[in-house]
Amino acid sequence: MIPEPTLSRLPWYLACVARLSATGVENVSSTEISRRTNVDASQIAKDLSFIGIKGRTRIGYRVVDLEERLSDFLGFRLSHNALIAGAGSLGCALIADRGLQRFGLNIVAAIDTNPELIGTEREGVTIYSPAALAEVVKQKQIEIGIITVPVDCAQEVADRLSEAGVKALWNFTPLRIIPHGDVIVQDTSIYAHLAVMYHRLTSPDK
Amino acid sequence: MIPEPTLSRLPWYLACVARLSATGVENVSSTEISRRTNVDASQIAKDLSFIGIKGRTRIGYRVVDLEERLSDFLGFRLSHNALIAGAGSLGCALIADRGLQRFGLNIVAAIDTNPELIGTEREGVTIYSPAALAEVVKQKQIEIGIITVPVDCAQEVADRLSEAGVKALWNFTPLRIIPHGDVIVQDTSIYAHLAVMYHRLTSPDK
Repeated sequence: MIPEPTLSRLPWYLACVARLSATGVENVSSTEISRRTNVDASQIAKDLSFIGIKGRTRIGYRVVDLEERLSDFLGFRLSHNALIAGAGSLGCALIADRGLQRFGLNIVAAIDTNPELIGTEREGVTIYSPAALAEVVKQKQIEIGIITVPVDCAQEVADRLSEAGVKALWNFTPLRIIPHGDVIVQDTSIYAHLAVMYHRLTSPDK
Repeated sequence: MIPEPTLSRLPWYLACVARLSATGVENVSSTEISRRTNVDASQIAKDLSFIGIKGRTRIGYRVVDLEERLSDFLGFRLSHNALIAGAGSLGCALIADRGLQRFGLNIVAAIDTNPELIGTEREGVTIYSPAALAEVVKQKQIEIGIITVPVDCAQEVADRLSEAGVKALWNFTPLRIIPHGDVIVQDTSIYAHLAVMYHRLTSPDK
């Protein structure tokens, strides 16, 4: 299996070659990708060889091939149906973020406990009652549950999403979610990142 | 210096003890924190000793002390002024997210190139022209620049924010930002997390 650090760097390379591709550049060397991503050139070559891409001597990588291969490998060219659990400010922002669609995330429904929100729509996405969860997940073939509820109910919501049959949980709360069964948990704990940044700001040695 | 993996786990412990504190629990053992966070109990004791916290035999940690010490250490009890660069859907969501304020992030201004947005307000936060950046950063004593622009202009915006005098960049784009001078870059690349999640979803061995 591909190491997670390698996997985490691939989107940087993709963002880099997508920009080159948009400006009509045909070939790119690992040295040039290195300059633009701040990753060591030999590391780049190693990372790309993991997904079966080899550069050619003195030519480098074909930009369009690299872009296609990276998008494919990262799953950005497939469509993944997702549900927002918690249609507050962050949940609604994710619904409105067209960037996610471009990366294959298709938010098809939301749930919220607020009776005033239930039955309304955000950007064409209907907000349902949590009671309808299992039915909605099944009907809309939802694979991914996105947790944007307050931290106090994050674990309960995670449990309910798992029971309803989602395969992955994308957790935006600072809570450490305990998964049940073989559901996958991906943390995007923006408050945790904030703490890391604060700490580096105030540490003399960063 | 505290290792980054330790630092990244501290917000989990904080979220855990904040819940206990809200329900009036007085003491907590590392075993109980372990059960709630899925981190090994000996790792928890080690992490907490890094920030000078020792549990007492058979009693464990005093919940209120632990909550206070973690909040302090993580910088959540100080106020950090920040500016949103790019008042699109994600930028405006961060402005609207009161959770960030609770964790010490005080968004005091935004910039955007869209003439229709310049001079308007979101939740009391004024959107300025990029031309006013240096002046706004100085006047409002802004430490942190939050990058929520499209990926194509992320590096340019990062350069301008650094020139304007911010000390840290919080990057929400998939681009690898190359820092200038001693500015700190914190990545919260939500699309990269998406890729990691997709990959684990489709890999048989996860």
